[in-house]
Amino acid sequence: MEDLILTNDNKIIFLILDGLGDIPNPAFSYLTPLEAAKKPNIDNLAMKSGILGRIMPVGIGITPGSGPGHLSLFGYDPIQYEIGRGVLEVLGLNMDLQDGDLAARANFCTVRDGIVADRRAGRIETRETERLCKTISETVSEIEGVQVIIKPGKSHRFALIFRGKGLSDKLSDADPHKDNRPFVNTSPKTKDAELAARIVNTFITRVMEILKEEKVANGVLLRGFSNKPGIPTFSHEFHLNALAIATYPMYRGIAKVLGMDVKEEPKDYQEMIRILKENYSSYQFFFLHIKETDLAGEDGNFPEKVKAIENVDAIIPDIYELNPHVLVITGDHSTPCPLKGHGWHPVPLLLVTKTGERDGMAFHEKNCILGSIGTIYSKQLMFLALAHGLKLDKYGA
Amino acid sequence: MEDLILTNDNKIIFLILDGLGDIPNPAFSYLTPLEAAKKPNIDNLAMKSGILGRIMPVGIGITPGSGPGHLSLFGYDPIQYEIGRGVLEVLGLNMDLQDGDLAARANFCTVRDGIVADRRAGRIETRETERLCKTISETVSEIEGVQVIIKPGKSHRFALIFRGKGLSDKLSDADPHKDNRPFVNTSPKTKDAELAARIVNTFITRVMEILKEEKVANGVLLRGFSNKPGIPTFSHEFHLNALAIATYPMYRGIAKVLGMDVKEEPKDYQEMIRILKENYSSYQFFFLHIKETDLAGEDGNFPEKVKAIENVDAIIPDIYELNPHVLVITGDHSTPCPLKGHGWHPVPLLLVTKTGERDGMAFHEKNCILGSIGTIYSKQLMFLALAHGLKLDKYGA
Repeated sequence: MEDLILTNDNKIIFLILDGLGDIPNPAFSYLTPLEAAKKPNIDNLAMKSGILGRIMPVGIGITPGSGPGHLSLFGYDPIQYEIGRGVLEVLGLNMDLQDGDLAARANFCTVRDGIVADRRAGRIETRETERLCKTISETVSEIEGVQVIIKPGKSHRFALIFRGKGLSDKLSDADPHKDNRPFVNTSPKTKDAELAARIVNTFITRVMEILKEEKVANGVLLRGFSNKPGIPTFSHEFHLNALAIATYPMYRGIAKVLGMDVKEEPKDYQEMIRILKENYSSYQFFFLHIKETDLAGEDGNFPEKVKAIENVDAIIPDIYELNPHVLVITGDHSTPCPLKGHGWHPVPLLLVTKTGERDGMAFHEKNCILGSIGTIYSKQLMFLALAHGLKLDKYGA
Repeated sequence: MEDLILTNDNKIIFLILDGLGDIPNPAFSYLTPLEAAKKPNIDNLAMKSGILGRIMPVGIGITPGSGPGHLSLFGYDPIQYEIGRGVLEVLGLNMDLQDGDLAARANFCTVRDGIVADRRAGRIETRETERLCKTISETVSEIEGVQVIIKPGKSHRFALIFRGKGLSDKLSDADPHKDNRPFVNTSPKTKDAELAARIVNTFITRVMEILKEEKVANGVLLRGFSNKPGIPTFSHEFHLNALAIATYPMYRGIAKVLGMDVKEEPKDYQEMIRILKENYSSYQFFFLHIKETDLAGEDGNFPEKVKAIENVDAIIPDIYELNPHVLVITGDHSTPCPLKGHGWHPVPLLLVTKTGERDGMAFHEKNCILGSIGTIYSKQLMFLALAHGLKLDKYGA
């Protein structure tokens, strides 16, 4: 079907409200946040030129992480393509990931007599982690020609990039995964990964040497080893120049992995709109990422999620006045407040277009069940957006 | 699942309104033609014994041509099986296509100093094309034992059949596809196609010799080379004797490619009904094709499309009085008036049966979203029709 893609300058905007989907909340008259939110701008578009439906990121009953959630939105099969946990961590800390890099998540831990007594080193403060990372950086910046790049995260967490040639990610976690188990090194899962295992284990040994006088954080655990994934670029797949605009680094990072451009790091929605407007003529596809809906869902905070949706509604006129061919408003997954975490529930989808069935309904989960799009896989959404962008040729004579 | 097919004389009628599906039309109170049409007979059947749904010919966002549209209606995977452009052209001109034939679309063009100055030869009149085709037919009726059959179409267009042994369709177009580019011959894409390429290029050379004194139409372009496709017959797939009744030759041709019988060439709906009645006892499956809905859609003519639907409604009593087990009313694709062309939108489907969920709704796009069939792929429709025709055995004990 890729042969059918036509090139034109019609604009497609994906406004992604992270964790948007929700379920009726018993504490709030069994409404969902999307139903309860006053969102006159979104609903006006939905009623006048909207088609509704639901997207399923991976499959029925499957709760997706941010990686598969976004890959599928952008038309990739989230089963075929994967962004490793180490890579996501590194992207979330705004580190620069290059081809061939081996990324890992890491944290400080407490080791006693070869046993991991506390995998989180008593959740030491962020500034402690910063101090220790600085020392490690200065002491172990290179192993056998492989560059080691370290960046502290929150509390006991940090992230790592090993930059060098031939570093496979086929490595077991250097982490017993539970307290009071023996400390472990990484092991290569394939012969190709022997070099990477040696580098990583040398790194661990040298770090343990540095930390040996520490009372609490006297060990490190590394896990989620992953290379920068070999995914075909978005522009190659869909013949679109794409710009990603996101306040959170992880989402700019995922976009970069797909070869999308990332101009700046906006601080707030106003800056996002400014970047969108300044670059509108140079791109055909825009990915705008909103994190606040997911944060509220993770906190189980219904009023906060309602407020987050209302705040997005306020910027809709600024976006729609650009007159895009297609405006998609949806999420990468559901984060229902009652679950305080990601859910498997299909995500409500609004596609604003002049060439659609015009469902004439407000945008929320219950109407989306009845919408003309039906319930589709997230990875199918891109083809629907391309169709409404008049970017697909006829199939067959 | 083919093992489950039972043989009985229960009748299935597919009444296909070409390009039936549409979208709400801003100029007509946001109705669709199917919603606006007064169709008491169809709606009476829909309310009393109808189940509704939508069919998707190829996939989400994909706009089908007539070939994949019909192949999928008849239960064939339109990705696996293909009817080439040359074959469709030849069928549309009512030419007799035989196994092994190599078909092509062709047109007269204007060549100056080896450059194709006008790919359409100033859109010469049909009678000019008829005159030139007659001369070519008389002069180049055979090349190396391969029979050449020519038939003029509208304006500068004509169609060709090369009839002989071993003529592969793996040929590049003998067409630069744009004006002011050098004239090109065909090239074989595989070693098998070398014979066909030589025959075609000899044909072109001899025709150019014939045309050299012409002022405007002094060249020919050939494209869409395709063999009669090797598709298993409909009767083999579904154990049904099938009769196709269509006023337009292309649809009789597609049916013939699938091995359906074609008795006569009806001039109007009354003749279609007469042929249906006369042959009703000899077949189990009937394909009735209505072209007018698509023509109106292509013209963007909403009132005309409404009228076309109403005209079909008038013949429904004549069809249903035959008391078929299953009457399917749907389209091969959507042709929304606002698009003035084929669309990717799912096609409304009505299946009249005594063994269904009985949705109790009038037949139009908006109700079809809510129907008990849901949105299915067109290629799945045949199995639903077989089921309601009580032609499918139980699967498993």
